[in-house]
Amino acid sequence: MTTESIDLRSDTVTLPTVEMKKAMLEAPLGDDVIDKDPTTARLEQMAAEIWGFDAALFCPSGTMCNQIAIMVHTQPGDEVLCHRLSHIYWYEGGGIAANAHCSVRLLDGVRGMIAPGSLSQNINAADDHHARSSLLSLENTVNKAGGTCYAVSHIRKLSDEARRLGLKVHIDGARIYNALVAKGEKPSDYHGLADSMSICLSKGLGCPVGSLLMGDREFIAKARRIRKRLGGGMRQSGLLAAAGIYALTHHIERLADDHRRATDLATTLKKLDWVTEVIDPETNIIFFRTSADPIHVQKTLEKNGIRCIYMGQGWLRMVTHLNIDDHQIRQCVEILKGLKIENTFIQ
Amino acid sequence: MTTESIDLRSDTVTLPTVEMKKAMLEAPLGDDVIDKDPTTARLEQMAAEIWGFDAALFCPSGTMCNQIAIMVHTQPGDEVLCHRLSHIYWYEGGGIAANAHCSVRLLDGVRGMIAPGSLSQNINAADDHHARSSLLSLENTVNKAGGTCYAVSHIRKLSDEARRLGLKVHIDGARIYNALVAKGEKPSDYHGLADSMSICLSKGLGCPVGSLLMGDREFIAKARRIRKRLGGGMRQSGLLAAAGIYALTHHIERLADDHRRATDLATTLKKLDWVTEVIDPETNIIFFRTSADPIHVQKTLEKNGIRCIYMGQGWLRMVTHLNIDDHQIRQCVEILKGLKIENTFIQ
Amino acid sequence: MTTESIDLRSDTVTLPTVEMKKAMLEAPLGDDVIDKDPTTARLEQMAAEIWGFDAALFCPSGTMCNQIAIMVHTQPGDEVLCHRLSHIYWYEGGGIAANAHCSVRLLDGVRGMIAPGSLSQNINAADDHHARSSLLSLENTVNKAGGTCYAVSHIRKLSDEARRLGLKVHIDGARIYNALVAKGEKPSDYHGLADSMSICLSKGLGCPVGSLLMGDREFIAKARRIRKRLGGGMRQSGLLAAAGIYALTHHIERLADDHRRATDLATTLKKLDWVTEVIDPETNIIFFRTSADPIHVQKTLEKNGIRCIYMGQGWLRMVTHLNIDDHQIRQCVEILKGLKIENTFIQ
Amino acid sequence: MTTESIDLRSDTVTLPTVEMKKAMLEAPLGDDVIDKDPTTARLEQMAAEIWGFDAALFCPSGTMCNQIAIMVHTQPGDEVLCHRLSHIYWYEGGGIAANAHCSVRLLDGVRGMIAPGSLSQNINAADDHHARSSLLSLENTVNKAGGTCYAVSHIRKLSDEARRLGLKVHIDGARIYNALVAKGEKPSDYHGLADSMSICLSKGLGCPVGSLLMGDREFIAKARRIRKRLGGGMRQSGLLAAAGIYALTHHIERLADDHRRATDLATTLKKLDWVTEVIDPETNIIFFRTSADPIHVQKTLEKNGIRCIYMGQGWLRMVTHLNIDDHQIRQCVEILKGLKIENTFIQ
Repeated sequence: MTTESIDLRSDTVTLPTVEMKKAMLEAPLGDDVIDKDPTTARLEQMAAEIWGFDAALFCPSGTMCNQIAIMVHTQPGDEVLCHRLSHIYWYEGGGIAANAHCSVRLLDGVRGMIAPGSLSQNINAADDHHARSSLLSLENTVNKAGGTCYAVSHIRKLSDEARRLGLKVHIDGARIYNALVAKGEKPSDYHGLADSMSICLSKGLGCPVGSLLMGDREFIAKARRIRKRLGGGMRQSGLLAAAGIYALTHHIERLADDHRRATDLATTLKKLDWVTEVIDPETNIIFFRTSADPIHVQKTLEKNGIRCIYMGQGWLRMVTHLNIDDHQIRQCVEILKGLKIENTFIQ
Repeated sequence: MTTESIDLRSDTVTLPTVEMKKAMLEAPLGDDVIDKDPTTARLEQMAAEIWGFDAALFCPSGTMCNQIAIMVHTQPGDEVLCHRLSHIYWYEGGGIAANAHCSVRLLDGVRGMIAPGSLSQNINAADDHHARSSLLSLENTVNKAGGTCYAVSHIRKLSDEARRLGLKVHIDGARIYNALVAKGEKPSDYHGLADSMSICLSKGLGCPVGSLLMGDREFIAKARRIRKRLGGGMRQSGLLAAAGIYALTHHIERLADDHRRATDLATTLKKLDWVTEVIDPETNIIFFRTSADPIHVQKTLEKNGIRCIYMGQGWLRMVTHLNIDDHQIRQCVEILKGLKIENTFIQ
Repeated sequence: MTTESIDLRSDTVTLPTVEMKKAMLEAPLGDDVIDKDPTTARLEQMAAEIWGFDAALFCPSGTMCNQIAIMVHTQPGDEVLCHRLSHIYWYEGGGIAANAHCSVRLLDGVRGMIAPGSLSQNINAADDHHARSSLLSLENTVNKAGGTCYAVSHIRKLSDEARRLGLKVHIDGARIYNALVAKGEKPSDYHGLADSMSICLSKGLGCPVGSLLMGDREFIAKARRIRKRLGGGMRQSGLLAAAGIYALTHHIERLADDHRRATDLATTLKKLDWVTEVIDPETNIIFFRTSADPIHVQKTLEKNGIRCIYMGQGWLRMVTHLNIDDHQIRQCVEILKGLKIENTFIQ
Repeated sequence: MTTESIDLRSDTVTLPTVEMKKAMLEAPLGDDVIDKDPTTARLEQMAAEIWGFDAALFCPSGTMCNQIAIMVHTQPGDEVLCHRLSHIYWYEGGGIAANAHCSVRLLDGVRGMIAPGSLSQNINAADDHHARSSLLSLENTVNKAGGTCYAVSHIRKLSDEARRLGLKVHIDGARIYNALVAKGEKPSDYHGLADSMSICLSKGLGCPVGSLLMGDREFIAKARRIRKRLGGGMRQSGLLAAAGIYALTHHIERLADDHRRATDLATTLKKLDWVTEVIDPETNIIFFRTSADPIHVQKTLEKNGIRCIYMGQGWLRMVTHLNIDDHQIRQCVEILKGLKIENTFIQ
């Protein structure tokens, strides 16, 4: 890999822009653990208002937001319902069990989305033998399905069904802004649909560090207590929160460019003879499979200046983001077209 | 339900026989928590020798045996691999997560059995995002699949594969004696295949209370410590253990009768117009589905003197056992043949 | 140790009497995990009525009762207040933390009893840094303090104070009947004082196995769920419960004899030149210290036919119980008087 | 409180200096969760070399560092030994129990320090009833004892004793640099004394966010896995790590000024008629008690431009730090001298 690599591994690799850094430098700061950092408080209030929650909590990561939400909504011995491709199940270190001591019910559903009407058959009967079904967690967009996204109407149906069944509803909105932009929806469309929601500032929005967890006042009070115990309380966090305020103000509309670029890349990939399958990108994520061994493909791409990531089960992933412009996409397209991939796949 | 009901809900409903009670009464007793109850020690040694383990531990239930095994073999944040129909996942109160704080990987496989060769694709990569795959748990017979059973050769393949992958192997042998009898195998065929194994004394073997967990010396030492913390240490447990010694001596060969009777019942069920599907019994469990609502069927059967149990997903279950003789099976067949079940199934 | 040893290690070593065994043999039985064992149900109802609770739950041990109570009353991250000599802290395998994930506040207080008025200064402020104080657990009698016992008026003050502070109250009544007999109180004096209470049937009451946990209907429903998950559900538990019914009917008044015998032993011990300190027994437990190494003393006593137990911090313990009669006490007194203990204590 | 308040509540309230901010802005960044942020890696390597460990891990807080250390060194059901004034017990949300599921043994000792030779009597016997003693955690300086500090020779004795007893040793070095400066010691004096150690960058060292956990390679690998699961992995963490590198280079020697200023404040406090007790400051922390209600005193001080904090049990705390200079100390002395505190203390 040279320093000029086009890094498409994840939208988490983005570096803060000059303007974002300026905002960070100028932010008024306090001690957010003793009482309150004013910039962090401002970001938390801003997000809560946008998404229609009472309050918000700034955390070091989206994983911490999701894990805290699960811990607040459940008790040990409960069961969390989520799609079988969920980030909370695959990429959070087994935290559903290890942090919240909850069992998991993994639901099927095309493109990473749970079908309306499928919850009731996945609720455990009220019987001491079974874990107590208590929380539905929905991810939007669904990373491991290829950045697919729920329409808000779909989420409303699931949310209604979940609540009829006595479940709490959490939305893992790590890339919810990508979903909004892709679907032409706005945050207010989501008002009231969930008991809690996380949004990530360090993915598509381009911040260096941080995520937000939102819920009602009691939920956030409990979440703050758990954040402290996990060690997620940060002192002058306003420095990081300032980037979040900047991103929520300036980095949302531009996600449409990321999506367009992802589609361009997918179009190119589909034409390559060593690419066997491409999931049509709905947002900024491209999943594809190859006729050759995916690790070999990944390494060959890397030698040629393109970094992507292996997601298991044969899938490679590219992600467009703030640090990838049209010029780099064109370069990438040229490199891909010129590449010779030997069929090295031996199972 | 009258007192003459034929109770086919489970083989756990058996009452101790006169001879078993006599054995219980006459057993020498001690305090098994302070130091050792001699009868319990004798049962533990007997089971360990039969199954080729260093040592054994008497517990109040099979659930406690399985849960302790998982706790000893894993650490919080690990992942347990098991078939998606496993008892440890469905019927132990979410204990994999709530007791051992472990995530679960649910494997597919026909008739409740994991296919040889399918483990490696279900092992998580050594990556901080993922739970650490550390234990394979196999259930034999598989209750929720209809009492199906692994051949020992099948288990050997899975055990070898698991160990190559660095996994520990636990066998949930709640009904392992049913598997042995059905397959014409003996305990010594299992020697060395697992790092731990549980057997239940209060199912087919007909004891009132108790299960055994077996493993090497270090495993049992750790298991004994955890049993104490869970509150599973029992004082004059020899009273219960005596029943276990009696059952291991007298109640194994007779399981063949239970299996024959299950086949007889299945044969009858298959001929009924309101029964749509019957899983061919391999042991003492019959699973069947009906054209009418299963809860309605269950209640109708109960009114007519037959008790069975609803297992979810449309399946009803009947289980033959120590307290069901040929006469009762004939009665049951007559009742079933004479029954009119209306198609009341409204989804 | 010969078979004629006088076993004063604990009141848990008692063997069931002939009459108790008879009651066990004749008890009607059912499957207490699937639905209900009639004898277990009868014992549970009997205890609940006696102690003024809605319902009760039969468990394999007092440890399980206490641990379940803590789990039901708290959430992970809470703090349990108890005396620093409490059984739940010392002898339940670290279960407060390991089972309920709760921190512990260890209170001082003479003779193992918490002083009225001392709770408020041991409550954590409502601050995210601190564990949330949520449960007071009182042990009566206090084993590790030498079988000392609270008067009910003392417990009432602590209970009132705890509830004013928003704490739940659990009573670990492993030896509560010893306290009742010593204080001349009756179960109804305790009505309403606690949110839950455990009583042990296999200590002074002489049953082979079992304890009861009591509370309101919702508490017991939650407790039953957790019991299942820990593996404490037992099938034909009526066999054990029958002993409990017998003991509650026949083995309470006789505790006065155990207390008298403990006083006799203490009187003898005080006169021995190698005994340096004896805690005046209030019930059936004698704690004493010696001028010689306590382990050496214990072994010497054992060689001479008396078994006692080392409790740490220099204390040896003797406990009188159902299987120790006046004749054995006289034998014991003679042996003690005739004993030569060398001062082998080297620190 | 006016904006000109002298904020002595904690050394965590410091704001980054201009030079520190400059270092942050110019730091090369990467994605520390996907692979590695170069500045974070540089800080981790720097700290590990200074303190003689294989490796280090940057975390959002000292609480996370300590909690991860406990989780790596122990298993659920173990017991952690620490002084009864320890931060890990009082100020980390009950995390010893809630995160690591460990029991705690609280040791006495003057000025917050454990006496050499006192460990062996606080180790549990190897008995299933007891939690397994497995970790000693030492805090240096001891916040809740008034910033007292261990000499390295004292720590060496405890460490040797702990290891002879089979315990792992963790040092909570949140303010270890204050101890070094006070004692005239250097990091290399600590080499080899502990299995893990945390240092905090956002207290005396003046960084906005972050702490470091150090240990051997295997320890850090496990710690990194747990950090991910807790949600402590941060993307472009180099931004924060750069402040740490700056602080380790420029902000250590100046701690002597903080200590001198603390002594000056203590001298003034001792002379005040409403101050009844002052713990002689060894470092930058002043603990004092007053004849009036401490909350009243705190509020009165705040109205007069001095912020301090209430620590419970009657103690108020002042802490000197990077943002407090000699001029402010003089102001503070003048305010204190001029203050009239009524005796409002009503217990």
